[in-house]
Amino acid sequence: MKFKIIWPGKTKDKEIKAIQEKYLKKINRLVPCTLIECKEAKGIKDRFAKRIKKIEKNHIEKHIEDDYIICLFDKGKQMNSKEFAEFLERIVKSPTPNLTFIIGGSEGLEEGFIEKADFILSLSPMTFSHELARIMLLEQVYRALTIMKGMKYAK
Amino acid sequence: MKFKIIWPGKTKDKEIKAIQEKYLKKINRLVPCTLIECKEAKGIKDRFAKRIKKIEKNHIEKHIEDDYIICLFDKGKQMNSKEFAEFLERIVKSPTPNLTFIIGGSEGLEEGFIEKADFILSLSPMTFSHELARIMLLEQVYRALTIMKGMKYAK
Repeated sequence: MKFKIIWPGKTKDKEIKAIQEKYLKKINRLVPCTLIECKEAKGIKDRFAKRIKKIEKNHIEKHIEDDYIICLFDKGKQMNSKEFAEFLERIVKSPTPNLTFIIGGSEGLEEGFIEKADFILSLSPMTFSHELARIMLLEQVYRALTIMKGMKYAK
Repeated sequence: MKFKIIWPGKTKDKEIKAIQEKYLKKINRLVPCTLIECKEAKGIKDRFAKRIKKIEKNHIEKHIEDDYIICLFDKGKQMNSKEFAEFLERIVKSPTPNLTFIIGGSEGLEEGFIEKADFILSLSPMTFSHELARIMLLEQVYRALTIMKGMKYAK
């Protein structure tokens, strides 16, 4: 089992980046997990959100393999942390044990791209900044792994 | 209108603390907002969660005034960011325009205390570390204020 996380553009906020690296290290102690910060659409005004999302979709697709794909989307399916851990456990025990999480940039993911995912996950019905959403995802993945492995995790 | 945020114990993670201060500054540009990091229960093993929650409830209560009280709880009511902004707007236009948000420590808030709140808000059905939940709340409060004031907010 291997995890991969893809998002467009490097994290700019230095504190969020530090937290991101901290969680990636913790996750990698439990499961091999690669972060791919693929190319982002640059120099396009955000009123052209549709164009930005299309460009970023193309960049993301270059890094997609035949894994189980989970797209993050605020209107996706919700679960609590225990259910999320059980859900991940079912995937890692399945014939496609490799998992790819995809999280959008500042404009989010393209709707058509989201629909093609194996699973659409919502961390919250609320909209968070895309960089904050990154560490929310990493924290949940780490938490799920500790639940799966029956470890104690500092709250 | 004044906002107050209460939680037990100072934020220990230095990156989360930096993000917390950044959002508090941003919020304070839009509305006066005081953060009270009240006393936390120390030196009690976390298997005595009930005792920890009772002690922290007593510390929190010392800082409560006759405001509209919103307790944060993963099993509380969910809304999206726009609904949250509309909800806050209704309160600030009400006869009790001052708002107090209360968020628990590592063991969460005491159940009986949560029930007495004017509103129980869930940021997510998932459990996040209590320090991460702090910046999630601050980000949502800031986002709600920018929505209420019709401002553009960098995603």
